[in-house]
Amino acid sequence: MSRNDLASSACAVARSIEKVGDTWSLMLMREFFLGTRRFEALHRNTRISPHVLSGRLKAMCAEGIIEKRQYSEHPPRDEYLLTEKGRDLWPVVMALMTWGEKWLDGPEAVALRHKACLQEMRPTLVCPECGEPVTARDVAAHVTEEFAGERCTGSDKG
Amino acid sequence: MSRNDLASSACAVARSIEKVGDTWSLMLMREFFLGTRRFEALHRNTRISPHVLSGRLKAMCAEGIIEKRQYSEHPPRDEYLLTEKGRDLWPVVMALMTWGEKWLDGPEAVALRHKACLQEMRPTLVCPECGEPVTARDVAAHVTEEFAGERCTGSDKG
Repeated sequence: MSRNDLASSACAVARSIEKVGDTWSLMLMREFFLGTRRFEALHRNTRISPHVLSGRLKAMCAEGIIEKRQYSEHPPRDEYLLTEKGRDLWPVVMALMTWGEKWLDGPEAVALRHKACLQEMRPTLVCPECGEPVTARDVAAHVTEEFAGERCTGSDKG
Repeated sequence: MSRNDLASSACAVARSIEKVGDTWSLMLMREFFLGTRRFEALHRNTRISPHVLSGRLKAMCAEGIIEKRQYSEHPPRDEYLLTEKGRDLWPVVMALMTWGEKWLDGPEAVALRHKACLQEMRPTLVCPECGEPVTARDVAAHVTEEFAGERCTGSDKG
């Protein structure tokens, strides 16, 4: 399977990975959520090479994850803003942060405050039906027929 | 910045991206959470080439995300199981799924049932302090001094 094949998968995880599941797209998402908007600052804060950065920004604009806005006419200068589609990637970045803080040693890099209750916190996953926290062990996954048809798992232990 | 530099970042997001923020590691995590354990099945269900798959499994074992267990002595055969560290990546896969289901057209591929309350659901993010759902707009992020030192954002709009 090439990366491109993931785009047509029945699986939403695979389709998302094709769009944003690479090192530099994820690093750019982190940066956008920290409020960075301009090419030079994106470059400095991620150290992505200008050539790669330019390509990623173009692809993310085409995908509707960010949008380009001119902030200066003379000289012409653009900045990049998250769209609603892009902002909805926040849980991906939160999940990577939570995992890294737990399992990969390092300082606290970012404090998060919930604007409504003013508490510092890390968001957590819950079941929206009962409100209880959920982890991988708490949830049973069942592959639908449509997705099963794409998979070829034999009779061994999957 | 090369991918390797991310490992020493003050930012937990960057450190996590260095470990699992690539297409095939993320695809393998999806597969592990669907219960797939064996090389042949991992290969079939992700179409990752055997060479790349072998390298990723070795790296994920070295990182403590999965562990290898022999399930047959004659012939010798191994399977790969998520560790606690690996299971803690579940929110990353959930976040990718939720985003893909909302923004990238496709069928429902996987049904999730919360074992405790028996409801089908998609986990959602809440503030653990007040219990309210949170999105990017609800949370203010503040970069700590340690992380600010690694960044070079000037006086422009980040």
